[in-house]
Amino acid sequence: MAATRLADLGEFGLIGRIRERFRAPEGVTGIGDDCAVIPQRSGSDTLVSTDMLIEGTHFLRADIPPYALGWKSAAVNISDIAAMGGSPTATFLSVALPAGLEAGWMEAFLRGYAELSERFGAALLGGDTTASPDRICINVAVLGECPSGSARLRSAAREGDLVCVTGCLGDSAAGLKAILEGVERDADVQALIDRHYLPLPRVEEGLRLAATPGVHAMMDISDGIGSDLGHILSASSGGWAAAAGAGKRPRSAAEMPRQQHPAALGAKIDPAKLPLSEELRRVCARFGWDAAALAAGGGEDYELLFTCTPEAEQALDVPHFVIGEMTEQGGLRGLEGLSGFDHFRKS
Amino acid sequence: MAATRLADLGEFGLIGRIRERFRAPEGVTGIGDDCAVIPQRSGSDTLVSTDMLIEGTHFLRADIPPYALGWKSAAVNISDIAAMGGSPTATFLSVALPAGLEAGWMEAFLRGYAELSERFGAALLGGDTTASPDRICINVAVLGECPSGSARLRSAAREGDLVCVTGCLGDSAAGLKAILEGVERDADVQALIDRHYLPLPRVEEGLRLAATPGVHAMMDISDGIGSDLGHILSASSGGWAAAAGAGKRPRSAAEMPRQQHPAALGAKIDPAKLPLSEELRRVCARFGWDAAALAAGGGEDYELLFTCTPEAEQALDVPHFVIGEMTEQGGLRGLEGLSGFDHFRKS
Repeated sequence: MAATRLADLGEFGLIGRIRERFRAPEGVTGIGDDCAVIPQRSGSDTLVSTDMLIEGTHFLRADIPPYALGWKSAAVNISDIAAMGGSPTATFLSVALPAGLEAGWMEAFLRGYAELSERFGAALLGGDTTASPDRICINVAVLGECPSGSARLRSAAREGDLVCVTGCLGDSAAGLKAILEGVERDADVQALIDRHYLPLPRVEEGLRLAATPGVHAMMDISDGIGSDLGHILSASSGGWAAAAGAGKRPRSAAEMPRQQHPAALGAKIDPAKLPLSEELRRVCARFGWDAAALAAGGGEDYELLFTCTPEAEQALDVPHFVIGEMTEQGGLRGLEGLSGFDHFRKS
Repeated sequence: MAATRLADLGEFGLIGRIRERFRAPEGVTGIGDDCAVIPQRSGSDTLVSTDMLIEGTHFLRADIPPYALGWKSAAVNISDIAAMGGSPTATFLSVALPAGLEAGWMEAFLRGYAELSERFGAALLGGDTTASPDRICINVAVLGECPSGSARLRSAAREGDLVCVTGCLGDSAAGLKAILEGVERDADVQALIDRHYLPLPRVEEGLRLAATPGVHAMMDISDGIGSDLGHILSASSGGWAAAAGAGKRPRSAAEMPRQQHPAALGAKIDPAKLPLSEELRRVCARFGWDAAALAAGGGEDYELLFTCTPEAEQALDVPHFVIGEMTEQGGLRGLEGLSGFDHFRKS
């Protein structure tokens, strides 16, 4: 029997299938109207984030199973809610698909998307389905909530804070490397590939961290710890570094915008403290890969990166690793030569 | 001087430029963190919608000026908020761009996006920028609000309602036809092209309609009135037609799900009442185009399509045209042979 193609199913047939798969919670108007309608609760803040995944930039269709791509599309967005210390509530999925794509591909994609998002209580409440001339394009927008004023911002780091992560780093980057190099998939390699394909957002950890006084800045590790920690430094230093790419980094203190943290904060990371999984150590030893470089520069771990006072760290009931500290001296030290990921500068 | 390319600007340089262009309202955390944080007001419902635009499916880069594409990307999303009778509050913009694209293209895109969204009070609060191997991909997610329970749903149409639209139909489709056929651009043709490139969402009209008792179902005209009115019919008939594309249309009343409107509502449109602009009439007369077909099947007008009681229609203070009525007999009559737009079935 020939596989169903999207051209046969039609746009509304596809929407109908998505709608059958995802039901809106009681009282919420989900898929099927111009907008979703979400009654608000007072006393809480709404969190929103969105991420786009493009075939050929973020994934290769021949490599990633559609189930994993669906899972990951939801996971990377829900991870952004976790990074604020919030609870995900709803997602909105846009997909542009080539007309010749097998419908089974999309079924598997939706299965992975649903399993991850249901695990974290995020309802699919809307989206858009359209045709793409060739590449698959995916965009997810996610909504979440947290008690008013409790969201953990990147700008909240302070001098003397410890820098911590919630789990091992580099597994995802090593998994990607294993996929691209086509190495034989024993149990260790498969574990790394699973970390790359099926990341688990740290929602519960984020909620507990955000409920802990003394936990200051927080974000998820998507681009690599060097690049991501740079965002915390710039945001906590008054935001000047955000314009650095446009050549606007101030040349003197007098040129810097006044903010809560007028001084340029720095951070010192001890590369020996980057937590590495046993699987990563063994695979790197076997293939001669640099585990520290993968851990520091690789990205897509979706662990939480946060800063907190030493007192708060002592009392934390969330598994974590201290990897460095925030310093008065500006700049990021300890990760020299290892950098994060810039989509437009990829070589 | 060589044009700046995205590869030179870098992802964070691009985000910095977007951030400079769009400022978050007081009390709201916008671009620059994992999520936007929007304090909620009690007593209101949050509205969310999202739309994806793909180069080669929705637009041709060589044809549409980037300013117009930015304007339109915001407009089609804000139109979805208007279609519920809500006020837009925030947008989230994801763009995937080829590294070789001139930075000036994106500047012009953002100018158009900003002008349209500022006109309607919608702040850009976040998004995603990434690289595309070739085609430009755009996704906008929009948030809006309306008083609790006041959103006008597609499912609210009733037998005996009048079917109305807020403005002329077919201009956008004729403008697209003029672009694709490369006809000479006199003032009339340019007016139609402007309607295609620079649609104005009917936010004020939507708010006033939603505040009017007796105005029942409402949506915006994006795919063409035949297709869009079909959505109102199926939603107001208990939703069975949503599954029609998947071959699940019930064959008897006994098979239909029980809803508030168990009977299959119909609509009868008088094609002679479809409002046509003077520009459309003149251009169609000159080139021998079928104005009624463009008005009924063309789409992208972004006027509001709504149903209301005859009494409510008499009292409306919003410009509108009555084009037909909801009937007991199922199906859509009066537009035979003229259909809407299905991205996956485009010939």
